[in-house]
Amino acid sequence: MKFTIDRTKFINQTNNVQRAISSKTTIPILTGMKLDLAENGLTITGSNSDISITAFISKEDADNDLTIESTGSIVLPAKFFNEIIKKLPGDNFELEVLDNNQTLIKSGVSEFTINGLDANNYPHLPEVETEDQLVFPTDLFKEVVNQTVIAVSNQESRPVLTGVNFIINPDGLTSVATDSHRLAQRKINITSDEEYNLIIPGKSLTELVRTIDDSVKEISMAISENQVLFSFDNVMFYSRLLDGRYPETDRLIPDDSNTTLKFDSSSLLSSVERASLLSHESRNNVIKLEIKGDEKKATLFGNSPEVGTVEEVLDFEDLEGDDLEISFNPDYLKDALRSFGGSTDIEVSFTSALHPFTIRPVENKDNFVQLITPVRTF
Amino acid sequence: MKFTIDRTKFINQTNNVQRAISSKTTIPILTGMKLDLAENGLTITGSNSDISITAFISKEDADNDLTIESTGSIVLPAKFFNEIIKKLPGDNFELEVLDNNQTLIKSGVSEFTINGLDANNYPHLPEVETEDQLVFPTDLFKEVVNQTVIAVSNQESRPVLTGVNFIINPDGLTSVATDSHRLAQRKINITSDEEYNLIIPGKSLTELVRTIDDSVKEISMAISENQVLFSFDNVMFYSRLLDGRYPETDRLIPDDSNTTLKFDSSSLLSSVERASLLSHESRNNVIKLEIKGDEKKATLFGNSPEVGTVEEVLDFEDLEGDDLEISFNPDYLKDALRSFGGSTDIEVSFTSALHPFTIRPVENKDNFVQLITPVRTF
Repeated sequence: MKFTIDRTKFINQTNNVQRAISSKTTIPILTGMKLDLAENGLTITGSNSDISITAFISKEDADNDLTIESTGSIVLPAKFFNEIIKKLPGDNFELEVLDNNQTLIKSGVSEFTINGLDANNYPHLPEVETEDQLVFPTDLFKEVVNQTVIAVSNQESRPVLTGVNFIINPDGLTSVATDSHRLAQRKINITSDEEYNLIIPGKSLTELVRTIDDSVKEISMAISENQVLFSFDNVMFYSRLLDGRYPETDRLIPDDSNTTLKFDSSSLLSSVERASLLSHESRNNVIKLEIKGDEKKATLFGNSPEVGTVEEVLDFEDLEGDDLEISFNPDYLKDALRSFGGSTDIEVSFTSALHPFTIRPVENKDNFVQLITPVRTF
Repeated sequence: MKFTIDRTKFINQTNNVQRAISSKTTIPILTGMKLDLAENGLTITGSNSDISITAFISKEDADNDLTIESTGSIVLPAKFFNEIIKKLPGDNFELEVLDNNQTLIKSGVSEFTINGLDANNYPHLPEVETEDQLVFPTDLFKEVVNQTVIAVSNQESRPVLTGVNFIINPDGLTSVATDSHRLAQRKINITSDEEYNLIIPGKSLTELVRTIDDSVKEISMAISENQVLFSFDNVMFYSRLLDGRYPETDRLIPDDSNTTLKFDSSSLLSSVERASLLSHESRNNVIKLEIKGDEKKATLFGNSPEVGTVEEVLDFEDLEGDDLEISFNPDYLKDALRSFGGSTDIEVSFTSALHPFTIRPVENKDNFVQLITPVRTF
């Protein structure tokens, strides 16, 4: 195996693949990055127990400046290999596998000889049939993920709750996550010949959206029994799926309400951020919202016995319905409000002090809801 | 005590004072920030066992928008107070001390009540006579600190070596630091009526140069028996001095050499950075420089038994003298090279494989030297 390549183009792709490589893995070869050089180009692979990423650098694309002298495969220690490539002096570099997997890397005045590993010992990637693919506009897909992944559980006690449930049927895609204290649900229209119900680990989705460059227009999704494959540009991103049944969540979302307020999401977020400064110091991290329907007044209260108290008179656009006092974890509300993006008109609807309340965008009420369970404080 | 003030101007100054406040202190009142309001303005104070910082916000300066209703003092929990002020909604805020050191902070729709502490219990600041002050251009002072502080020791076993020695006499200022493996010395011309020999803790100097804004033109230095006071703009920065005798270092710096190379500092730095990638993985973190005088060739070698080897052919501007093989810690050379700033012509001079070598700027040889002790590898 011997080739020369444009260093910047190569680094762009190793940066993607690197996201799948953990230095903490118990399988030594997975701390490595695999390079497979074929006649048509170079494939770079990284993998851990949850996700695998491959990136392809084509010989056809002249910008890659890829010259192939002989094909072959090698696994190189990812951390050092990346650091070395990033610091090399030249615009290009040459890589050649010598005897015993020793790998020579040359660029300008620099010459590294790195101990590689036999690529035959690298695990095989999962096989995913890509005939039936769903295609999403990248922006919309990122929105769906970012709006739901905030509500996944960090607790391994109920593994399915660490994932986001994707339900695909003739109605479109419904994406749901809940950690049993809060829930996020987003629906979009897509057409699919097949029906699917899958649970994708939240961490995989977070890495996935980080990997997708802003320049990517579309992302394709192919689903097998225990794997999902996302493809975009020259990158393939595999994630394992979570086993088990995701709970039915539709009945948890209330249809009616007794008190409704309309806010600008960023204005409410600022108030909650201030109110939570002190609640973070108290044992239970709870703030209280007091709504007076007749007086058209809504106030947030936070306190910490040690530090002090805070009172925020809320600046709403509309208030309808009954008086209410309700307490909740301000961090859930902050996460939910941030998921609406910048400054959005939202509707917050309450049933009672002990029932979950919902936050929805005024413009797209039926397709996006954040739900938060209050805290009983008496 | 009651006043209103421009929030941004206030934050600029608390950011300075905050550098002296540690949440880890064992003296609870020092986790607080002290506010003293007099007729002419507001003084903010932060302190720890090493440094104290005060900042003054003048009533005279209309930009501060300072309106004083009644004078007084209070100590507020620094961490929360800063977070609160930064997140308040208005351009201004009002602060009023109520009974029992309770402090009311109002801005726009927000109202915080914070538990303060009695300012009478806050320690007194050191007294430093400011009649004989030394005045430095800020850029030059920062250069002196940045070029020497890299060589201070982190080990408390010899406390004086954790500081930078400032020697002020009719010849000017000589600033020296050494951790006994490397040494940095910088001289500048200044005129002083008095002679001084003081040791300023390296950590204090690092915080000091971080505190000095780029807009500051001059910095004044006043010295007492066990304290030094730096003043600039409306900020006073106190540091304790280290007790003890600093070692004589002049005789450590060699006057002559057998092999000399001239480099562009940034080009040599890049090569050392690459060579050190592998040495960091080896037990002793050493790289080897091989100089062949006749062949006019200099090469750096680094290796790690686990990862591999690296060879860097150095790109020098001039090479004179004997052949040499010398080994050293690449991190010392990296720190030294960075202290020359961007791209500077430097001269590296060697006596033998077991004697310290020096790095000096070609343009200012007599006033700035970095010295590194080699490592015996045989």
